[in-house]
Parts: sequence; C-alpha cells; structure tokens
Amino acid sequence: MEKVWVAGAAMNRFGKMTDTGREAATKVALDALDRAGLEPKDIGYTFVSNAFGIAEKQAHVGPLINTSLGIPEVPSCTIESACSSSSAALHEAFVHVAGGFLDAALVVGAEKLSHLDTLASTSYFAMGADYAYESRNGATFPGLYATLATAHMHRYGTKAEELGAVAVKNHANAAHNPHAHFQKPITMETYLGSAPVAWPLKLYDCCPFSDGAAAVVVVNPEKFRNRLKAVPALIRASARSGSIAALQDRTDLTGLPASQLAAEKAFRQSKLERKDIDFLEVHDCFTIAEILALEDMGFYPKGSAARATAEGETALGGKLPVNPSGGLKAKGHPVSATGAGQVVEVFEQFNGMAGKRQLPGPSLALTHNVGATGGSCSVHIFERV
Amino acid sequence: MEKVWVAGAAMNRFGKMTDTGREAATKVALDALDRAGLEPKDIGYTFVSNAFGIAEKQAHVGPLINTSLGIPEVPSCTIESACSSSSAALHEAFVHVAGGFLDAALVVGAEKLSHLDTLASTSYFAMGADYAYESRNGATFPGLYATLATAHMHRYGTKAEELGAVAVKNHANAAHNPHAHFQKPITMETYLGSAPVAWPLKLYDCCPFSDGAAAVVVVNPEKFRNRLKAVPALIRASARSGSIAALQDRTDLTGLPASQLAAEKAFRQSKLERKDIDFLEVHDCFTIAEILALEDMGFYPKGSAARATAEGETALGGKLPVNPSGGLKAKGHPVSATGAGQVVEVFEQFNGMAGKRQLPGPSLALTHNVGATGGSCSVHIFERV
Repeated sequence: MEKVWVAGAAMNRFGKMTDTGREAATKVALDALDRAGLEPKDIGYTFVSNAFGIAEKQAHVGPLINTSLGIPEVPSCTIESACSSSSAALHEAFVHVAGGFLDAALVVGAEKLSHLDTLASTSYFAMGADYAYESRNGATFPGLYATLATAHMHRYGTKAEELGAVAVKNHANAAHNPHAHFQKPITMETYLGSAPVAWPLKLYDCCPFSDGAAAVVVVNPEKFRNRLKAVPALIRASARSGSIAALQDRTDLTGLPASQLAAEKAFRQSKLERKDIDFLEVHDCFTIAEILALEDMGFYPKGSAARATAEGETALGGKLPVNPSGGLKAKGHPVSATGAGQVVEVFEQFNGMAGKRQLPGPSLALTHNVGATGGSCSVHIFERV
Repeated sequence: MEKVWVAGAAMNRFGKMTDTGREAATKVALDALDRAGLEPKDIGYTFVSNAFGIAEKQAHVGPLINTSLGIPEVPSCTIESACSSSSAALHEAFVHVAGGFLDAALVVGAEKLSHLDTLASTSYFAMGADYAYESRNGATFPGLYATLATAHMHRYGTKAEELGAVAVKNHANAAHNPHAHFQKPITMETYLGSAPVAWPLKLYDCCPFSDGAAAVVVVNPEKFRNRLKAVPALIRASARSGSIAALQDRTDLTGLPASQLAAEKAFRQSKLERKDIDFLEVHDCFTIAEILALEDMGFYPKGSAARATAEGETALGGKLPVNPSGGLKAKGHPVSATGAGQVVEVFEQFNGMAGKRQLPGPSLALTHNVGATGGSCSVHIFERV
C-alpha cells in the first residue's frame, strides 16, 4: 500500500456565496493546489461533492470544474453521503492513491442553497434523513437531534448549560477563524436566552445554513515529495461505517453506532491510541452531536463529555482541543464542503497558519464527519510529516 | 493488484416502476447476490447510483438500502456522473477490490422519475448538461445530440436510414429481452414516419424515459472462488475519462473525446485489441450515439459505422454484435441504472441466460457508458472465466 499525503487544502469563507457551486469549487481547488505547490495537470482524478447541486440545476459538475481547471480529460465523479459527502470523497481519493491507481487526486466539496428560501433549503437538507419514515412525517434534523439530546439528558443528566458550553466554546474559536461563517463570540446568557427550535435545542444549539466550498489535494509522496511547498499530512487512517439511518429502528439513542464503528476502524488502521491525538475536528451540527462524537469515539466515557466540556477540557487551551476551527456550529456547515473543510483546519494547524487559534505544534489530528443522524460516518487520522 | 470478478448481476424490467428507488435497489441487489451465490453479509461496501433521487425526496440512500439488506453497518456512498453514474460506481468498486481494500462490493443503480410529468423529468435530465451555457438556454439532450448528428451527417454523409438501422436493430434485440422497456420490433417505415423531436432526430432515434434498477456484485476471486454459483466475468479493464462538457467549447462535434480516451485506456489496461472483443454494450441514448461510440472507440473508422450498421454487421448474427440487450434505445435508460444494466447483459450472455438473443459462447465483452454528451465516459472490458 502506498502512503497518502494531504499536500494542500483550502476553503472559502463559509456563509453566503455569490459564486455558484462550480465557480467556488474551482477557486478553492486552485487555492489548494497553490498551497501544495502543484498544478491542475498533476491531478489524475477529481472527486467532487455537491449533494444539493440540483438546487442550482446542475448535476455532473465534475467535468465543468475540470474544464475550468484546464484539465477536461481528467475523469471525475460526484460523491454523496449527506453531510459526510466530502469525507466520503476523501476516502475514495485515499483508496485510489493508496492502491497505486493514481499519483494525485483532487477532492472538492461545494454547496450553495442560500438563493432558496428557508423552507426549500430545509426540504433539501431533510432528504438526508429517511423520507418514508422521518422527513415525510415532518421530522427534520433539529427534531431528530433533539430526540438524541433528550435521550442523552434522560440517561446521563446532561444539562442545557453543558450543551451551551459547546456553543460558547465553538463560537469563541470561530471568532479567530477568518473562514468562519460566524466570527463573534457568544455568552452563556445569549445561548440560554435564544429561541427554542426543537426542545431541548435552542437556536444556538444549531449550526447555521451555510454556503461554502473546500478542497483537498492528496498525493503519493514518492511522486511529489520534492515539489511540495507546505507541510504535508500523512493519512494514518481513512475509515467509514454505516448504521441504521432512521432513529425509530435503533435500540439506543444515546450515541451514533456509525461513529463508534468508524473510530474503531480508524484506530485499528492507524495503530494509534486516543491519547495520541492532539486535537479533533468533530461533526457538531448541533451541540449534542459534539458530545456524542467525543463519547462514541472513546475520548470520554459515556455521559462524561458534556461535563468535561463545561469544565474547559476541550477549549483551545484545554487538554484535548475540539473544533479549534469553530466547528460546524460556528464555522458553518455547507453540507458537501464540511468534511473537506475539517481537513483544511488540520492543514492550517499543521502549517502554523491558524493565527490566534493556533495550537502549539500539533502532530496528530482526527476528523469526524457524520451523514445525517449517523446513517454514515467517516473518521480520518492525520499525522504532521 | 488483485483480480476482480463480477460474481453476479441482476436488474428489474426497465420501464415504469411502482417500487421506490430504494425498494427497487434492494430487490435487484438481493437478486444479484442470489445469482452469485453470496449473501449480503459478504459485502464490504455499497456504491449506489441514484442521480435524481431528489425527485423522490431522498438523498443518502445507501444506508437505507444496506439496512434493508440487513447490513446497516456497511459503509456506502452515492456516486453520480450523469448517465454514466453506475459505471463510475463500478469503477470505484473495482479500485477498492483490486487495491485489496475490500473482498466484495455491491454496485447498485436505481432511478425513478415516472411519477413526474415530462417537463419535470426533462428538467432533471437536463441538469447533466452545462446549466450556465446549455440547459439554461433551452438546450436539452435531444437538441444537443441532434447537433452531434448534424455534424456527423455534414462531414460523412450519414443518412437517416442508417440511423434508423440502429433503432430497428436495437428494438429487434430488445424484443428478445424480458428486462427491456420496449419488447416489440419496429420497421424502418415506422422509424422514418415517426414524429420529429429535434431535427434530424425523430421519436425513434431517442431512448425512452425509463425507471429501473440494476446491481452488480464484484469480488476478489481468492476469497470467494469456491462459493460462486454462476460463471464469473474477470474485469480486464476499468477506465474512465472526462472531456469539455459543453458542446460550444469543443473543436470537433463528430465524436466524443471522452469515449476515445476511455477506450484507449481500457485497451492499454487489458492488453487486448479491438478484434478480440466478441460483443459490445454501448451508450445509445440516441441512435447517433451508437455510431459515435463505434467510431470513437476504434471499432470502425470515422464515417463508416452507420453504413456497417445498415449492412447488418452489428446485428445479433453479425460480425460484431452491438447492444444485444436492446441498448438504451429499446431496453431503456433509467439514468443511474444504465451502466450496471449493461453489465447484467454481459453476465447473462456469459452465463448462457440470454434466451433468443444469446450469442454463441462469447468470451470477451466491452461496455461503454457516457455521461451527458460525453463530459464523462466509462469503458469496461470483461472476460468470461
């Protein structure tokens, strides 16, 4: 098996794009290549994610992006796995390069829905759930994650102020991130006073609707080692798992089985232990999701991550920084760009480019990206080269 | 590199489904596994194609299919490349198994749009073209392929009766295929008298709007050789290419560059020559597309495939049978099921299951699947084991 390096990664500012998805994807792809020191003609395959491109009346966007990059002959496909689309695309890129089928691949995720009204956007997002059993009956993601939050509170006594600690921390981190949708800190009072969305989740428990684009360039180091101009990240693990999608068919709602399985696989692949990891970017589409991620992946015993968060353990200066970027909660969550965006944070942290949110010399990082309420999960582990 | 075998393949009858896409996908997956002699728990990854699942309000369909199969923990993703979606998915499955990352993978494509009216269906299909430069301005696929047909007629003198020969042949083949959308032969008179759609293309130059589903199971023979109950097909080549998507930016409209490149790669990979191939399943979304495929892939010199077709060379009893299944033209074209459906024909021909369309002991077959007007193309070559 060949080694696989992340040679470059870049994103735009998440929020509201005037660019179309294809335009934004092309720009971040060029930025990621530029950061790597590579050119479009080095790329052998383009894995695009653009789950809701149909909202822009555009499917089959890979050839359009490749044409804009000046490499129309390069094959492409679009990979969708709801909110875990671009981490699923990264997995494909990893397999192609690790298997020796390609020397370099481009992963690019883009999403734009801000031209639609809230009902239309929500309807698109809800298609990631089980239509026949969930979304058709009115269950959208705030309601589904509220169900998970309620179960966790019931079993472990998790408190609103502990969920609020996730929101306050992630907004504080995003305030130092020029890529973030929200760049203002919030207080616990603001959190606690925010409007209910789906009990027990309030407005500040929920990530925003964001447009955005992010790209990752992966390479075989044997072919490109001498040309790279940034510090690369070795992919120590690229692991995915599925689970029963619809909540009503699960036996336990206090965790996501796909996160548990994907993390187990990733730690097995990497031969690392939880304590080796310097920081995490996890899928905090809602505050409860960050708590579930920390417990499901074995960083905290079940029922203990919320209190640890409230005590500051996962803050920038804590013993295990979580979502230094601001996470989906505050950096934003443009569905198909989210997984690739997590890798941008790893790249910037490893390259000392993270400004006021820079961690002191991290060398191992983990990204965790969930599809919907955990029908899919991808976990990647990266090592600074 | 590990060898990769197609162990089983199955499809439903293309046409109009009462099943939803997810239901149909699950059924054909079970049929393909049953033909192989394998069980869902043998599968390590599911690659779904369902380009227009959003028309059924369902994205992220992989976990739903895997849950119905009883393997919810198996990872999945959805792969889109317009009309070449499920051949792009087959390529991913090939890479995973050939690279040693998986022992067995499921490829399943499904599409259902028949619950929509014609305008809505056409609008979805048109999203495979370049929205900014083609579909927004009213160019849908009949018009775009009419442009290609016109260029070919202008340069090579291709005649309506020669395009008609493609339609008559493929309807004749489909009359022997219980999976086909259309199972009635047509005459040249019917063809010539059919209504104009986009000059020079008439109704019988065009494939129908079909619902449908098809599945392919690929395996590492070292792991499953002793359990298989059908004749497997070794994948000798799995090749993809892209090209400039929008017609107005191309320098030549008498062929599809992506077909040329993908076929070159496939023949290089397989170390075979054109003359070794016993039959082809090619992408005949319009009659002209079959002519372009035969010329672009080097089976006929440019400008000669239409006459050869009219002379019967590509008929069931001809020297190079093309689309014994009836092709997209008459078997039908449910976008995301089409590429996998082509492999079903290869599987049935290699297993002597093709009834009145059975070819005499074919041992090498090629499938050719185009995305849109050739922004993408996949070519696979299979050898009977």
